[in-house]
Amino acid sequence: MSFNPLIEKIIAMKNPTVAGLDPKLDYVPQYIREKCFEQYGRTLEGAAEALLEFNKGLIDALCDIVPAVKPQMAYYEMYGWQGVRTFTRTVEYAHSKGMYVITDGKRNDIGATMEAYAAGHLGMTDIGGESFAAFGADALTVNGYLGSDGIEPLLKVCAAQDKGIFVLVKTSNKSSGELQNLLLEGGESIYGRMACMCDEWGKDVPGKYGFTGVGAVVGATYPEQLTELRIEHPSIFFLVPGYGAQGGGAKGLAGAFNSEGLGAVVNSSRAIMCAYKKEGCDESDFAGAARREALRMREDIGSVL
Amino acid sequence: MSFNPLIEKIIAMKNPTVAGLDPKLDYVPQYIREKCFEQYGRTLEGAAEALLEFNKGLIDALCDIVPAVKPQMAYYEMYGWQGVRTFTRTVEYAHSKGMYVITDGKRNDIGATMEAYAAGHLGMTDIGGESFAAFGADALTVNGYLGSDGIEPLLKVCAAQDKGIFVLVKTSNKSSGELQNLLLEGGESIYGRMACMCDEWGKDVPGKYGFTGVGAVVGATYPEQLTELRIEHPSIFFLVPGYGAQGGGAKGLAGAFNSEGLGAVVNSSRAIMCAYKKEGCDESDFAGAARREALRMREDIGSVL
Repeated sequence: MSFNPLIEKIIAMKNPTVAGLDPKLDYVPQYIREKCFEQYGRTLEGAAEALLEFNKGLIDALCDIVPAVKPQMAYYEMYGWQGVRTFTRTVEYAHSKGMYVITDGKRNDIGATMEAYAAGHLGMTDIGGESFAAFGADALTVNGYLGSDGIEPLLKVCAAQDKGIFVLVKTSNKSSGELQNLLLEGGESIYGRMACMCDEWGKDVPGKYGFTGVGAVVGATYPEQLTELRIEHPSIFFLVPGYGAQGGGAKGLAGAFNSEGLGAVVNSSRAIMCAYKKEGCDESDFAGAARREALRMREDIGSVL
Repeated sequence: MSFNPLIEKIIAMKNPTVAGLDPKLDYVPQYIREKCFEQYGRTLEGAAEALLEFNKGLIDALCDIVPAVKPQMAYYEMYGWQGVRTFTRTVEYAHSKGMYVITDGKRNDIGATMEAYAAGHLGMTDIGGESFAAFGADALTVNGYLGSDGIEPLLKVCAAQDKGIFVLVKTSNKSSGELQNLLLEGGESIYGRMACMCDEWGKDVPGKYGFTGVGAVVGATYPEQLTELRIEHPSIFFLVPGYGAQGGGAKGLAGAFNSEGLGAVVNSSRAIMCAYKKEGCDESDFAGAARREALRMREDIGSVL
């Protein structure tokens, strides 16, 4: 269990970023939507096919410069099981292009049930003696509100493979402090406590770059906490959302990385997916625009490392 | 937004229980598994078809005595998109038999993404002007770690309809106290704080039985907290897991209900699904055994109201 495969790709591409694949139908160029609606109707299936074609275009354009993609389950579930089928095919396609896949599902449950999530998202499902990777991602975001026995099944599934989990610590949204910033008796914050739990969960599985396989989600929108957590938890690898569309700038990201320029992977979703809208280029050039934005982002983040 | 439809079914059936549909393949009678494997192979599809047939049998046997079912997403995701298709069909089938459906997904995310979960699980998805219920459940379990802007999109989607959410407050698992029982400055527990947030989120939408549409998950395994929360939060409707297989007894449940015998719906999953194993009856009588266990549970819980 580790983030070694992700970190190796980051080093090779000199790019600590991940492209979020959160494909709202509105983000998909109209010509793709129209084509899929014509073939499959204005249905969940039609929408799901449009998302898949969009994702494939993005993956083709990004796979040699961006180490990872992060499909957000919500945007697939929104289109029913047909959307989840597109999610599955997106993971497969990204893998076929050599990309590392982080499923953003923020899953959480009690032990026995977490075993099912762990098997489905990261491990294998046994069916009468045959073994299948249901979704087969490389990492999964999870929520630690239920404590250790909601996390341990994931550690087991990740143990035999170089897979990892990112636990929500300090999320990027405006109201994240309502609970996460509250102080416990003794003065520790709830997000600080959660980070300590991540250390505990990951302590038996140090990776070769100094990071365990139990990472943390820490928002770029809170640069102070990002810096504080980096200093206090040098072994926790960060997944950092909130860069770009959510308003976090590269300057605030510097604190997420250690002196070797490692320690975090920064996500951008909308800014990459909808780069063609911002650029105002022809929508058939959506993938080219996504690549240009990803290169801009690499340069921007590289400048603070 | 409310739990009125659920509460009305509970009153009509004199049964404050929900049958968890967490169909591990091991739980499915062998003759169903073999039949589906023969038709679809030992594949994700074969497994998913077996789960669907099992669920339908359970729903047929329970629909006139149990007001609600609670499919647990993890056990469907474990079988890939094919499993999620079975989940969708299970929701449809339960609805066709008049049952209330609580999706146990413990979903959580930032605002914009939560809108997608809300649309997918409880609301409608727009596809080029056409509207679809992707999953179409009546209620969803959610995790409040991200604060208000992860909850508000759900309130909006539930507003126009009598739908509701159950927020994780004090979960039934052994390690739930690791975070949830920690005390904040001032002496309030984290689960207590979360319950207060539920009050706040639900305050504008009082239901006609005195409960808002923002409920809470509180485990039967912690009867003291169950009683304490019932007294301090009279408007919060509880979803209570941990009865039966997880070890919580009916005696400890009494505190979950108010003086009118309302206030909670108690879940049992494995004890109902696997009743045929415990009874040792012929596996073809799995549905009959499930019904007998559900009746026993109704009586058991009725005895403490």
